[in-house]
Amino acid sequence: MKLSIVGTGLIGGSIGLTALDRSLVDRVTGFDIHPDRAQKALAKSAITHIAESAGEAVRDADLVIIATPVSEVVQTFEEIAGQLKDGAIVTDVGSTKSRIVSQIGSLSTARASFIGGHPIAGSEAEGIEAAQPDLYAGCFWILTPTSSTEATEYKNLVSFISGLGARVISLDPHRHDELVALTSHLPQILASVLMAYAWDRARENKDLPLITAGGFRDMTRIAASSPDLWIDILKDNREAVSEILAGFEAALRSAEGMLRGSKWEDLRSLFDHARTSRMGLREKPGVVPEELAMLLIAVPDRPGVLSDVTTAIGEVGVNIEDMEITHSSEGGKGTIRLTLSGEQAAELATKALEQKGYVARRIDG
Amino acid sequence: MKLSIVGTGLIGGSIGLTALDRSLVDRVTGFDIHPDRAQKALAKSAITHIAESAGEAVRDADLVIIATPVSEVVQTFEEIAGQLKDGAIVTDVGSTKSRIVSQIGSLSTARASFIGGHPIAGSEAEGIEAAQPDLYAGCFWILTPTSSTEATEYKNLVSFISGLGARVISLDPHRHDELVALTSHLPQILASVLMAYAWDRARENKDLPLITAGGFRDMTRIAASSPDLWIDILKDNREAVSEILAGFEAALRSAEGMLRGSKWEDLRSLFDHARTSRMGLREKPGVVPEELAMLLIAVPDRPGVLSDVTTAIGEVGVNIEDMEITHSSEGGKGTIRLTLSGEQAAELATKALEQKGYVARRIDG
Repeated sequence: MKLSIVGTGLIGGSIGLTALDRSLVDRVTGFDIHPDRAQKALAKSAITHIAESAGEAVRDADLVIIATPVSEVVQTFEEIAGQLKDGAIVTDVGSTKSRIVSQIGSLSTARASFIGGHPIAGSEAEGIEAAQPDLYAGCFWILTPTSSTEATEYKNLVSFISGLGARVISLDPHRHDELVALTSHLPQILASVLMAYAWDRARENKDLPLITAGGFRDMTRIAASSPDLWIDILKDNREAVSEILAGFEAALRSAEGMLRGSKWEDLRSLFDHARTSRMGLREKPGVVPEELAMLLIAVPDRPGVLSDVTTAIGEVGVNIEDMEITHSSEGGKGTIRLTLSGEQAAELATKALEQKGYVARRIDG
Repeated sequence: MKLSIVGTGLIGGSIGLTALDRSLVDRVTGFDIHPDRAQKALAKSAITHIAESAGEAVRDADLVIIATPVSEVVQTFEEIAGQLKDGAIVTDVGSTKSRIVSQIGSLSTARASFIGGHPIAGSEAEGIEAAQPDLYAGCFWILTPTSSTEATEYKNLVSFISGLGARVISLDPHRHDELVALTSHLPQILASVLMAYAWDRARENKDLPLITAGGFRDMTRIAASSPDLWIDILKDNREAVSEILAGFEAALRSAEGMLRGSKWEDLRSLFDHARTSRMGLREKPGVVPEELAMLLIAVPDRPGVLSDVTTAIGEVGVNIEDMEITHSSEGGKGTIRLTLSGEQAAELATKALEQKGYVARRIDG
């Protein structure tokens, strides 16, 4: 398989490094709008060849990863669309999905298929210098298939991502954007506002040192992230983030009310709830290996079934370890065989599928 | 020197461990209101002897560390006051200082002197199980001397704390409480409210998994802290925290306004400012060793001079590596010789002292 990466920074570079390191591919063609970044990626063995343009980079590729900032994904797709070979799969790594998936959906040609992606990994670091081969080990990687997504292409993309060590969760693009507003974009705003506020307040007091323990440092670590990348992300996800932020502010005012009113039992309940939730936060998946469980689902052979089934499972937090799709020889029907990790995952998935009208049956592996 | 620790949990236990490990003392008598904790501390070599009561624990001690929760510090001092030997130094490790210092100040006997303390270290972990000998290496440790603090006792306490590997900053108790409201208590509230809010929102969406990258995990780590300890701290520091929290909420609303109004350049400036500030956040002191600088300060020989001089320096963020106090043989005058780390520290300290009417002179070590 030939891999092509457009944008060889932290994420693109880490994908190339990992894919080569794990021998998923033996050839990675890279292009970056900043030629020195591509050179650095080559020097770091994150890519094996440099192309002169995005179009040239993707010409022979079976799989194309667009790893540019979110604001450039659609334009990059437009640039490469005419050069893609038949059957090529294109995905991206942007932190928002609704706009990208809908805009590219309206551009898509019959020759290649686009499936939106978002690896939930990264760091406040930037650039190819920070790329590392284990960046995705055990992380979630969200895919946003749509009704036009072909099952075989989806399966191939899942295989590649699983090969990088990540675990695929399938979500509707809008659901994805709501979820990241809550778990990523809100925290980023809080970290930045906290850092700026603490700095300004401390400066007011004659340069009082920011005598900070680990808690403050942890909470402001991501405030060092690139403002440019974040403005792009927030532009795309403005509505979902505004709504989530307003909700958080209400929760914070409520806590302030407890504090001012000396309602200590209420405040203790809040802290207790937060503590219990934090301790229940799922560990990085893969830390506790679980028994695999298999589900067999009879499905009509029509567009949209794949995204229906996979996003229903993604919404209850279950990731798909492996999948196999069989089309009935008589046409009109098929089966999807899913491999999931653990008993509980299989139960959650079965219920979620039932609610969508699918019958899932447990089988032995 | 004989050390006594009342309260052998994470902090008390770590002090005992470090003091024994570094041979600052060869005997540590410990008492804990929960006898099993004292037993565990003994088994872990954090103390060498167990006392049956707080009073018994401190009877022979030259230095007593009260390492109970903040709500119990004053009561503990009352319990031990009658048992202290002449010239004993008593300090605590509570996260708030104004109330403790003022209440104990009104109790203090001529036999022993109390100097409030607060090591800026710790973790969301609790208990003697989490105690470790390197907990204070390179950390700040705030002391809050008052006008009744004797220079010799202050100096001895600074020597002990420096021996643990920490760096002493001297602050007025009120200034301390404002500073920790900003850099510790506000972050704690944000972490807890964020965790509870994200959990509740995610649960609303059919058990959507908290698919979280490192940023969210970092920002909610301290939400796992003990609610009991935090309620105590917030009770003590309610006013300062309420005021800081209100200011933060205003800053957050302002950011929300930029987002809703698509004022991207304003938001970018905010993120830029946060990023620059975060990158300017001082590293754990001691990471970059600096040349020592010495200051000689002529001082009148009267009560309050020591706290005046040391807190003036603490307020500009400079810690004192070492100090020597000389009383003039003719009485009425004296000199304080301070060892500070680095050229910049010496300049900041000199200016801060000038503003308080003291003349500091650079001397060679």
